[in-house]
Amino acid sequence: MAAYSEMSREQLIETEAKLKREYEEFKVRNLKLDMSRGKPGSEQLELSLDMLTVLNTKEQCLVNGVDCRNYGILDGISQMKQIFSDLLECEEDDIMVGGNSSLNMMFDAVACMMHAGFDDCEPWEKQGGIKFLCPSPGYDRHFAITQYFDIEMIPVPMTPSGPDMDMVERLVESDEKIKGIWCVPKYSNPQGITYSDETVRRFARLKPAAKDFRIMWDNAYCVHDVTDNPETLLSIVAECKKYGNEDLPILFASTSKITFPGSGVAAMATSKKNMAIFKRRYRVQTIGYDKLNMLRHVLFFNNADGVKEHMKKHKEVLAPRFEVVVSSLENQLGGLGIARWMNPNGGYFVSVDVMDGCAKRVVELCAEAGVVLTGAGATYPYGNDPHDSNIRIAPTFPPVSELKTAMDLFCLSAKLAAVEKLLAQ
Amino acid sequence: MAAYSEMSREQLIETEAKLKREYEEFKVRNLKLDMSRGKPGSEQLELSLDMLTVLNTKEQCLVNGVDCRNYGILDGISQMKQIFSDLLECEEDDIMVGGNSSLNMMFDAVACMMHAGFDDCEPWEKQGGIKFLCPSPGYDRHFAITQYFDIEMIPVPMTPSGPDMDMVERLVESDEKIKGIWCVPKYSNPQGITYSDETVRRFARLKPAAKDFRIMWDNAYCVHDVTDNPETLLSIVAECKKYGNEDLPILFASTSKITFPGSGVAAMATSKKNMAIFKRRYRVQTIGYDKLNMLRHVLFFNNADGVKEHMKKHKEVLAPRFEVVVSSLENQLGGLGIARWMNPNGGYFVSVDVMDGCAKRVVELCAEAGVVLTGAGATYPYGNDPHDSNIRIAPTFPPVSELKTAMDLFCLSAKLAAVEKLLAQ
Repeated sequence: MAAYSEMSREQLIETEAKLKREYEEFKVRNLKLDMSRGKPGSEQLELSLDMLTVLNTKEQCLVNGVDCRNYGILDGISQMKQIFSDLLECEEDDIMVGGNSSLNMMFDAVACMMHAGFDDCEPWEKQGGIKFLCPSPGYDRHFAITQYFDIEMIPVPMTPSGPDMDMVERLVESDEKIKGIWCVPKYSNPQGITYSDETVRRFARLKPAAKDFRIMWDNAYCVHDVTDNPETLLSIVAECKKYGNEDLPILFASTSKITFPGSGVAAMATSKKNMAIFKRRYRVQTIGYDKLNMLRHVLFFNNADGVKEHMKKHKEVLAPRFEVVVSSLENQLGGLGIARWMNPNGGYFVSVDVMDGCAKRVVELCAEAGVVLTGAGATYPYGNDPHDSNIRIAPTFPPVSELKTAMDLFCLSAKLAAVEKLLAQ
Repeated sequence: MAAYSEMSREQLIETEAKLKREYEEFKVRNLKLDMSRGKPGSEQLELSLDMLTVLNTKEQCLVNGVDCRNYGILDGISQMKQIFSDLLECEEDDIMVGGNSSLNMMFDAVACMMHAGFDDCEPWEKQGGIKFLCPSPGYDRHFAITQYFDIEMIPVPMTPSGPDMDMVERLVESDEKIKGIWCVPKYSNPQGITYSDETVRRFARLKPAAKDFRIMWDNAYCVHDVTDNPETLLSIVAECKKYGNEDLPILFASTSKITFPGSGVAAMATSKKNMAIFKRRYRVQTIGYDKLNMLRHVLFFNNADGVKEHMKKHKEVLAPRFEVVVSSLENQLGGLGIARWMNPNGGYFVSVDVMDGCAKRVVELCAEAGVVLTGAGATYPYGNDPHDSNIRIAPTFPPVSELKTAMDLFCLSAKLAAVEKLLAQ
C-alpha cells in the first residue's frame, strides 16, 4: 500500500469517500465494545475460580498460631510476604502486604510523603512546589495521584529501553524540587517496554539533588508475559544496594491481574528506613488488612512458582488477543505511514501512535461507531499529549471475535482521521 | 466492706500486707492473659464460619449484570449498601462501602479534609491550628488519627447521656478552628454509653462557627447488645435534616465485630455534598474495594434483619463475659469507695475509674502478674488521663474461666494500688 503522504489530493479525496462509506457501514451495526481499560476478560476470571473454595475450614485459618479471621498482623501473613518477596526480588522483611489495590498503596505512599518527611526533610506539602517525573506515555492513574496532590508533573519521553535516562539524570540530579518518578519497569503501561539493564543501573546510580527523592517502581506486570519471548528485568533493589542507594526505590505489585481484579492482594516493598515511615502511618490507618484473602492466595498458589505456572494459563488466553491487535495493525495500517506501534511481549496494552494531531479524532470516530477506547491524551500528564497521537488499546476484555471487529473499526478510523488531516493541510 | 478512706493507718498497713500476699500468689501462677483490645474471642469467630463457604460458584459472582470478581463499582454493590443503609438509618445512595476497616475510612476521611476543602473553605492543612473535640474517655485509635495529622485535641467530659453538650455547643459555636468531634454514639468506647435523644438533637441543632465542622459519628456498636435491655439511638441523619444540617454528620460502621474482625466490610455514609468531595479522592485512590467479600456478607445475612438475628448469637457468647466483669467488680470492689464503673448494655468494654492517681499503677500491677490491660491513659487524648483513673477492660477475648482469674487480679490490683496511695498521703 502507498504511504498516504505520497498521495495526490485527488487520491486522498477518493480514499476519504471510500473510507467514509466503510465507516457508515460500521455505524449501522450498533457495536457496543469496550477496549478502554486493562480489565481481564471472563476467560481469565475462570482460571482462578478455585480461589472461591480453596479456604473452607477453620483449621486452615490458623497460621503460625494466629487466627487469620481475627484482628492482627499489620504487614500481612508471612507466606504471602514470601510470595511477593520472590516476585519482587527483595527480602521478605521489606514487604508490607496491603488490601486489594496496589494503586491504593501508591496513593497512600504519596499521601504519606506529603505529610511526613523523610529523615530530616520537611514533608513534601510543607516544601511546596514539588515535582514528579512522568515517563510518557504512561499510566493515567499514576498521573491522577500526583495531580490530586497538586504535584507538578514533568513528562519524560519513553525510549525502547525505558525513560530517556539522560533527561532523568539531568533533572533529578539538578532540581531538588523533583521528588519522584513513576515507573512501570516491566511491560510498561501502555507500550509494553521492559527497562533495559543499563536503564535499571542508571536508576540505581542516580545522585538526586533532593534527599527525599524516591522511585515509584510499579511492577504491575512482573509475571505477565503474553508471548513465548519473556523479557527479564534487573532487580532494582539489588542494583540500588550496590550503590548505597537502597532508600531510593519503593516497589509495588498486586495479584489483581493474576487472580481476581476486584479481590486480589497488593503489596509494597522498600528499605527498612522508608518502611518505618510508612508503617508509622499504616499503624494509625488500620489494624490490618484482610488476612483471609491473603490465605486464599497462599493456598491457591503455594509459592511464587505457583504464581508463575498460573500465569502461563493467562498467557494462553491473552496471546491470541494480542495477535489480533498486532496483525490487524500490520495488515491494515502497515506501509501507510500513518501509524506506529509496538509488539509487546507482555503487559496489558498495545500502544499505537497515529498521525500527529489525529488521536482525539480516532477515539471520537471509534466512539461514534460504538467502540470505547481510553481517552486520547490519557497516557500523558494532565491528559495532554503534545502530539495528540498516542492511543492505548486494551485487548483483554472483549472476546476475540469482537476484538477483530473493534480493531477493524480502529484501523479504519486511523485511516479516515489521517486522510481528513492531510486534506485539511 | 468498709470504705478504704475511712480506714485507720494501722488498718491500711494490715490490709496492704494481706493484699501483697494475695498478689504474690498470683505472680507465681505465671498468668498470660490479654484484656487489652476489643478483640472477639474464638467462640464468636465460629458464629460466622459459613462465611468461608457461602460464596462458591461463579454464577453467584454475577450481580445485576456485574461480575464481582472483576474491577468496577467504586462505592460497593447495591445489596451491601442496602444493609448498611438500614443499619445506619440513611439512604442507600448516601452509602460508600469500603475495604475491611472502618478505621481506615475514618483515617481517609480526615486525610481528605486535611487536603481538600469543603465548599469554599480552605483545606484544613492550609488553615492550620485546627482542633477536634474528643469526648473522653474515648477510643484511642480515633485520637491517634487526629494526632497523626497534628490536629489539636480538646477533651470533653462524658456524662451518662453522652458528651457534655453545654461544653460542645459553647466550643463548636464560638471557635472556628474546631473542625470536628469524635463520637461513638451507641455503647460508646469504653463506657458503653448510648447518647440520649436530647444529646443527638443538640448535635443536630449545632450552629458551628466553622462552615467545615463535621461530626465523626462512628457507629461501631450499632447492633452490639450484650444484655436483654437493648438501647436505641436516635437517627442523627434524620435529626440533622430537620435543622438543615444534613452536611454535619459523617457516619461509619463495619462488620468487623459482626463477622470476622480481619475480613469484615466497612462503610461510611454522609450527605451527597460531602460524599462528592470524598469520592473525588476515592476515585483517584482505588478502582474499587473487594466486592467478593461484600457478596459473602450479602449471601450470609441476606439483609439487615439477618445481621440483627446474627447479633443475638454474639450476645449469647458475650453476656456471660460482661457478667463476670461486672459481678467481679461489684463483689470485690463494691462499697470500698475506690472505684466506679458502668454496667453497659452493649459494646465491647467495661470502663472502670479506679482511685485518682492509681490507673497506671493498677495496669502495672496486672502486667507484672501476667494480665495485659489497655495502657492507662489510652482512653484520653495524648494518652493523658488528667486523673490517672480510667481503665478500659475488654472482656471479649479471654475464655470465661480465664476472665474470672484476670478480674480477680484486676480487683486485687485496684485495692493494692488504692492502699498504697492512701498510705503515701
